[in-house]
Amino acid sequence: MSTLAKAMSKFRLAVVQLQVGGVKADNLSRAKRLVKEAAGRGGNLVLLPECFNSPYGTSFFSQYAERIPGESTELLSEAARENQVYLVGGSIPEEDGGKLYNSCIVFGPDGKIILKHRKIHLFDIDVPGKIRFQESETLSAGDTLSMFETPFCKVGVGICYDIRFAELAQLYSRQGCQLLVYPGAFNMTTGPAHWELLQRARLIFIGGDHETVKTPNFRHGYMTFDREAVDNQLYVATASPARDESSSYVAWGHSTVVNPWGEVISKAGTEEEVIYADIDLQYLADVRQQIPITAQRRHDLYSVTSVQRGNS
Amino acid sequence: MSTLAKAMSKFRLAVVQLQVGGVKADNLSRAKRLVKEAAGRGGNLVLLPECFNSPYGTSFFSQYAERIPGESTELLSEAARENQVYLVGGSIPEEDGGKLYNSCIVFGPDGKIILKHRKIHLFDIDVPGKIRFQESETLSAGDTLSMFETPFCKVGVGICYDIRFAELAQLYSRQGCQLLVYPGAFNMTTGPAHWELLQRARLIFIGGDHETVKTPNFRHGYMTFDREAVDNQLYVATASPARDESSSYVAWGHSTVVNPWGEVISKAGTEEEVIYADIDLQYLADVRQQIPITAQRRHDLYSVTSVQRGNS
Repeated sequence: MSTLAKAMSKFRLAVVQLQVGGVKADNLSRAKRLVKEAAGRGGNLVLLPECFNSPYGTSFFSQYAERIPGESTELLSEAARENQVYLVGGSIPEEDGGKLYNSCIVFGPDGKIILKHRKIHLFDIDVPGKIRFQESETLSAGDTLSMFETPFCKVGVGICYDIRFAELAQLYSRQGCQLLVYPGAFNMTTGPAHWELLQRARLIFIGGDHETVKTPNFRHGYMTFDREAVDNQLYVATASPARDESSSYVAWGHSTVVNPWGEVISKAGTEEEVIYADIDLQYLADVRQQIPITAQRRHDLYSVTSVQRGNS
Repeated sequence: MSTLAKAMSKFRLAVVQLQVGGVKADNLSRAKRLVKEAAGRGGNLVLLPECFNSPYGTSFFSQYAERIPGESTELLSEAARENQVYLVGGSIPEEDGGKLYNSCIVFGPDGKIILKHRKIHLFDIDVPGKIRFQESETLSAGDTLSMFETPFCKVGVGICYDIRFAELAQLYSRQGCQLLVYPGAFNMTTGPAHWELLQRARLIFIGGDHETVKTPNFRHGYMTFDREAVDNQLYVATASPARDESSSYVAWGHSTVVNPWGEVISKAGTEEEVIYADIDLQYLADVRQQIPITAQRRHDLYSVTSVQRGNS
């Protein structure tokens, strides 16, 4: 392996667990400062939380919404360029054509927008006595899968509730992603119950690849598949806002990075902080070889398919 | 709700964590005694572990293999009939047409065989210095999904490694299962890493239903779906052999039942024991309404399909 390729097999992910308040300018300046801090500590790819420029709540979305480009994305573009990082800009309420979306904008190290993901699964739940939230009262859903390339690996993007839908992760994996990032803001009910579980679950069960080559194993009548195919296991990272007990929607915090063996390798508490994780693509390759579930998938029995092409 | 229907909305699952040794007759008599004990304590559906009549290992499968019907299934049939229970007979090495399978036989309360599931994903893994196992060296894989009906609910069956494949659970859920059972024997490497995680993961993310009725929500341009559709969340139960440190393959133990909220509601230690869980289908319906992920799935963006019809 060349020195360059070797260097590329590892990169540093930085997750910013931002304290988000009611003053947009403060949210933006704090985000800018922490992106710089993250880059200064070696972060190659920086991840911000869902709704990083606005309090999270249906009553706030229209008030804080921006067109793209706009104030928030201009600032993120600058931060990406100045610090030479890939920047997954959490999400902001986006206004477009009279509709509002929960949108994640991704910037390259040159400051250019390389992806826009509009949350495709709106957060509508009702757990009596615990939590009721209906994003669909004010937001519209996006309609595309969202992946982007980096020199390190391909990355799949979802926002918060998107993580509950296995098919999205299955398709991202099938299309070559080795890292999934989910800016998210779980709450004090779903957070302790499902936040970490969903992240750990995503990485070890997903996959399915229809481009694999079928290789009948005549000795046992069992089908095996091309090991070179897109594989399943991957890294998963989430970024939450810091917890603010005084806000109307109290975020769970605990931004997390999980490795392909299902282990939490980095995890924030509830306060504002930046956490780091070294993403090791060689380790990922090793795990995929040890438990080769993609090669072992029964494509003769089931399939997961994309109905609509993604924007990658 | 009528008294009968109300009664049917709850039933008791008993999971037998059997101590499995080298003497088949002992394994069988212990299984019979514990099925009786489970029924005596109210078990309506009794679950035995993977490879309950034989040590687990490629060198043992041919030695302990039986045709069906045979000694082991005759005994299970009798146990089901005498105790008036649905009996998911863990698994046994099955010989058929010169091939060996890892097969789970399910019996009705009348003692009749109502299902045979041959493990469809063979356990071939290689984690250097930890665990190498290649079922495919001696076993052949089954080719069908396996579900059965009870007066309580529809049940989907997988064996051990089958649990790593999300698509199987997705299809079981889509076809109406409310309980998934996995006789299994994880080991001292994969057990602590993934055993509980996989069970908790299975129940809250699975689903996908192509028979749902699309109902455009014109207000927000977001697609919603028929709430009556087959839903996702469900109960998951696993049955492991008890741990035997002296055997060549040391099972993890910790047979477990998980509810649709992702909580472990019953869990064995490492020794032989029977654990019980009251399966509450009304609670299941409540959770499905609170976090209605099936109704919220984006069938316009992705789909999970069965390539081959199941045997249900």
